[in-house]
Amino acid sequence: MARPPRRAAGQRLALPLLCLLFQGATALLFAVFVRYNRETDAALWHWGNHSNADNEFYFRYPSFQDVHAMVFVGFGFLMVFLQRYGFSSVGFTFLLASFALQWATLVQGFLHTFHGGHIHVGVESLINADFCAGAILISFGAVLGKTGPAQLLLMALWEVVLFSVNEFVLLSLLGVRDAGGSMTIHTFGAYFGLFLSRVLYRSQLEKSRQRQGSVYHSDLFAMIGTIFLWIFWPSFNSAPTALGDGQHRTALNTYYSLTASTLSTFALSALVGGDGRLDMVHIQNAALAGGVVVGTSSEMMLTPFGALAAGFLAGTVSVLGYKFFTPVLESRFKVQDTCGVHNLHGMPGLLGAFLGVLVTGLATHEAYGDGLQSVFPLIAKGQRSAMSQAMYQLFGLFVTLVFASVGGSLGGLLLKLPFLDFPTDSQCFEDQIHWEVPGEQESEVQEPLRGEETDTQA
Amino acid sequence: MARPPRRAAGQRLALPLLCLLFQGATALLFAVFVRYNRETDAALWHWGNHSNADNEFYFRYPSFQDVHAMVFVGFGFLMVFLQRYGFSSVGFTFLLASFALQWATLVQGFLHTFHGGHIHVGVESLINADFCAGAILISFGAVLGKTGPAQLLLMALWEVVLFSVNEFVLLSLLGVRDAGGSMTIHTFGAYFGLFLSRVLYRSQLEKSRQRQGSVYHSDLFAMIGTIFLWIFWPSFNSAPTALGDGQHRTALNTYYSLTASTLSTFALSALVGGDGRLDMVHIQNAALAGGVVVGTSSEMMLTPFGALAAGFLAGTVSVLGYKFFTPVLESRFKVQDTCGVHNLHGMPGLLGAFLGVLVTGLATHEAYGDGLQSVFPLIAKGQRSAMSQAMYQLFGLFVTLVFASVGGSLGGLLLKLPFLDFPTDSQCFEDQIHWEVPGEQESEVQEPLRGEETDTQA
Amino acid sequence: MARPPRRAAGQRLALPLLCLLFQGATALLFAVFVRYNRETDAALWHWGNHSNADNEFYFRYPSFQDVHAMVFVGFGFLMVFLQRYGFSSVGFTFLLASFALQWATLVQGFLHTFHGGHIHVGVESLINADFCAGAILISFGAVLGKTGPAQLLLMALWEVVLFSVNEFVLLSLLGVRDAGGSMTIHTFGAYFGLFLSRVLYRSQLEKSRQRQGSVYHSDLFAMIGTIFLWIFWPSFNSAPTALGDGQHRTALNTYYSLTASTLSTFALSALVGGDGRLDMVHIQNAALAGGVVVGTSSEMMLTPFGALAAGFLAGTVSVLGYKFFTPVLESRFKVQDTCGVHNLHGMPGLLGAFLGVLVTGLATHEAYGDGLQSVFPLIAKGQRSAMSQAMYQLFGLFVTLVFASVGGSLGGLLLKLPFLDFPTDSQCFEDQIHWEVPGEQESEVQEPLRGEETDTQA
Repeated sequence: MARPPRRAAGQRLALPLLCLLFQGATALLFAVFVRYNRETDAALWHWGNHSNADNEFYFRYPSFQDVHAMVFVGFGFLMVFLQRYGFSSVGFTFLLASFALQWATLVQGFLHTFHGGHIHVGVESLINADFCAGAILISFGAVLGKTGPAQLLLMALWEVVLFSVNEFVLLSLLGVRDAGGSMTIHTFGAYFGLFLSRVLYRSQLEKSRQRQGSVYHSDLFAMIGTIFLWIFWPSFNSAPTALGDGQHRTALNTYYSLTASTLSTFALSALVGGDGRLDMVHIQNAALAGGVVVGTSSEMMLTPFGALAAGFLAGTVSVLGYKFFTPVLESRFKVQDTCGVHNLHGMPGLLGAFLGVLVTGLATHEAYGDGLQSVFPLIAKGQRSAMSQAMYQLFGLFVTLVFASVGGSLGGLLLKLPFLDFPTDSQCFEDQIHWEVPGEQESEVQEPLRGEETDTQA
Repeated sequence: MARPPRRAAGQRLALPLLCLLFQGATALLFAVFVRYNRETDAALWHWGNHSNADNEFYFRYPSFQDVHAMVFVGFGFLMVFLQRYGFSSVGFTFLLASFALQWATLVQGFLHTFHGGHIHVGVESLINADFCAGAILISFGAVLGKTGPAQLLLMALWEVVLFSVNEFVLLSLLGVRDAGGSMTIHTFGAYFGLFLSRVLYRSQLEKSRQRQGSVYHSDLFAMIGTIFLWIFWPSFNSAPTALGDGQHRTALNTYYSLTASTLSTFALSALVGGDGRLDMVHIQNAALAGGVVVGTSSEMMLTPFGALAAGFLAGTVSVLGYKFFTPVLESRFKVQDTCGVHNLHGMPGLLGAFLGVLVTGLATHEAYGDGLQSVFPLIAKGQRSAMSQAMYQLFGLFVTLVFASVGGSLGGLLLKLPFLDFPTDSQCFEDQIHWEVPGEQESEVQEPLRGEETDTQA
Repeated sequence: MARPPRRAAGQRLALPLLCLLFQGATALLFAVFVRYNRETDAALWHWGNHSNADNEFYFRYPSFQDVHAMVFVGFGFLMVFLQRYGFSSVGFTFLLASFALQWATLVQGFLHTFHGGHIHVGVESLINADFCAGAILISFGAVLGKTGPAQLLLMALWEVVLFSVNEFVLLSLLGVRDAGGSMTIHTFGAYFGLFLSRVLYRSQLEKSRQRQGSVYHSDLFAMIGTIFLWIFWPSFNSAPTALGDGQHRTALNTYYSLTASTLSTFALSALVGGDGRLDMVHIQNAALAGGVVVGTSSEMMLTPFGALAAGFLAGTVSVLGYKFFTPVLESRFKVQDTCGVHNLHGMPGLLGAFLGVLVTGLATHEAYGDGLQSVFPLIAKGQRSAMSQAMYQLFGLFVTLVFASVGGSLGGLLLKLPFLDFPTDSQCFEDQIHWEVPGEQESEVQEPLRGEETDTQA
């Protein structure tokens, strides 16, 4: 296979220099600001009287590990569906998320756990950083195949800041509830990526169209991503909730929502497909919409039926989006959305936010008992009525959309900086631009393995 | 590649209509009957004085997640070994299990946790539903490639009911012990599937034989399934046991049993293989028999040696079954067992039931101490002797075989209903019947990536 | 594809006979020596007054499961990168590790938990056995493709003994701290394998060179291994540490170290690559060096900055090793290191040991408070100064290198025993020697699926 031509020095060096620069900067900031928290510091933990069993680690680490698997295995492999972009999909996921974890530790830390001049880290900050990385990867899905790794690092630099500020405004300033991130993660990540993709619109993308589809094996690899996202989504939504019933109920609601989005995805995919055939794109993506749609409400008293209904709706909307809206998005709105993040994260995220508004508005002391304190502390304290909390939830969605759209647009301008590794229109969706790629087939073993040698051992 | 001919409307619509119908029905039943239990309900949990650490979630959720991974990743990918049926293997696993989780929640709920007019759900019901889904997927393995998704949904509808009733008869009425389901899951699932496959016998299946084998990459995908099943099997068997030593001992016994079945599988595969070569079918399947065979007894005082011996035996029997019995099963008994579930689940399940009888019969107050209450409550209370408990275990196996054989046969008749999506003899083991399938190879990139464009950035 | 010639009976039988012999021997030893410990025995656990929540199972089992996934999924798939050796990579990993788990239970048990004439097993012994299996698999990486499975079993038999004795000398006799095994696992496993590979040096290996590289899909399979190793490494290092802050801090340090090694790996890979392209070998391996390098020090008060710095350094050294040192290792030192374990485990392991010396030497009562007792019990008791503990750490590294080099060399001689299944120079890196291998491509479906049959259902 012919090699692409040699690149300019700037393009070749953009990635390594950004990696070194960013790593140097975060390391420096870590040295100055980041410290163990009470649960990870040897002296602080042993000061006072705790049982080891009380350490937050035992309540959250198993969920954290599931989230971690979703970010790296789930998102990474989900995007491997492209036939010639597998190395980049899983590799850049790896790179972007690794940087985002460090950078989010800092930015979120300054906003959430900064006291005494230091950021304090433990398993909760790990979970929060992974959540932020998840949002970055959602945006990555929108521009997959059309951006170089240095561009993506720059995107992550900018997006982590906006994500963290938006999250801070919602959760800390507005008192919005959004444990599993229907708004802060999915809506934000999707619309940030879509606006960014709009700014980077390529009118000549058909030059790379022949590589934009999947092949049989790449679809199976992508299913690894899908299934790991699907099975661990209950842990994702429940990882940061209140302990006890909160974490338990969140996982349970998410589980049921996902089963329903899977059934509606299969139903709709067969209904809209040619001759009733199922489409792998739908199964790989829309079946997950049930996790997105209960991101806000799964910690609430959604009821198992509510979870099923929400999941069913989300799967339906998502398949219809892939079938009918994605083409319009490109032709009418000039948004090229490689992975269809609008269908998997955008619309289900919006639905999830509205569902959160609804379920919040219906909250009563009867339904939550003393548990109201954990789920809606401001209502429990009498500072807000359920209805006003619901309005805050709605306002949180509005804020998120503003941050995402303005931030994504500015991000798109940033990625047009000339020294970056922007692939040309005919180089999109192609690993060879960024990677040493081996041949596709194993070398033919023309001759039989030689028998005369079977006894000539070393 | 030539497309299969257009299907009749009934066949095209069978899948989406069943999905919508089943989802609608379960959602309705959820609305009427399913409620949070004490551990997932905000008001109930906060009523009274618990530490959050006491919530069942923290004792069972990590094991649940492993079970969940086994059901969707393990079973799904294990069946990807077929060269042209990977989408269906992993996709229909996804569909069937999603439906089974909802439906099992209802049927098991009516039988186990129904009080005050409601079914109460929490992590234990999630585990039980996943177990039921596991049995459905075992049966799926017997008919893999020879049934359409609508047929499979109908199978699941019927099998979930029988599974749950059989489980209820054994565990609740007969007081049988079967934590990891040697009887209730493996024996039941395997023989249900085999009898069903018998009824659906195809004398002309050789028309599809050329697609019934694996290719190099499909075998590697299948190993993903094998390895995830193998590593998480200790969690499977221990997920529903008594807490403390019970869960701990069960995991440990299963771990050792699996190492032994792996060693005996490699030994036997090389011994019966051509020129001493190993057969991937054996490694992918028989190595797992050690998990099946201790399903009943691993919560008991089996001893680590007992676990090794049981695993060794199971691996041996399983490989010999693949080599010598599967061909006979088809030629003499007209049972076409695509995945060899008789060898992985059927015979090792029977062995596991017998092992359970033996270990139960040997139970003493000396060996179990006060732990007897957890493992054999009826013996501890003096209501049964060890020997009579052993006889109940044996009777439980008999009941299971009756349910499985009668149920599977009736299930086979059900699947012959004319409006279903039954593939013809020459369409078996072929994804194209059910899926939009992309080409196998990535499109050739004939021209070099064009260099003259490297600076024409958007 | 032509079949290799028929093998001699000795070669064909070496594998099954060794499997049966080894399994028989360990089963016998299990029967005589291995018993449940206080946490897994029904009578012992229920004797006295514990809460079930105190059972070690709940503190360590989730971490154990992650370690178990790393050993079987991580190591297994990481080595699938070879184009024609995927079955062997994942299959022999499966076999070797299964045997090693049993055998390590015995050898480690005799050294660590032998009292009253019995070895006592529970989740900690499972973790320790998995750690030992990890070291065996590291050594396997050095000789991957150049050894038969019977040879490898013999290697495991010998290496498990040496590993366990070395571990006992370090941890129990010298009081060295090495929770995540920078020395006992990585340095030992790597140098054992490298010395063994030296003894088995093949001057004619170029006869198999055409199969020594990867293909596109095999690199994606290998990334499954990489990512699972990467995400679960925090659990690996923290699995055996002191509970509470110790386990929590270890996981956190490892997490940050890995993000830094990933960034430095991408930076360096692009810098040393042709035209700035990334090399999959680096990403698959060097990005993991951050887990190795903090194996000793991550339980200590390394600080988050220290973790980043260590990971950055390890990734850098590892990439440079792949690029510049591996060729020299073969040409000058006659060491053929298939997977580059010297770069992933050898050098980062050494660095990790030195880092442990440094961080130990800096330990103060102020920094650790009462937690000093958990991390450095001998310093806390006043039996050693921080400096003398540091010297013991250094001496531990020396001991490890002696065990590994002498043991690996002797192991190489052992593997030259004539009755073994040593592949010839032209048979290396080829599955067909050991496995029944199906064709690479699915059989062509020449004819369209026949339409006239669509209604001839069974």
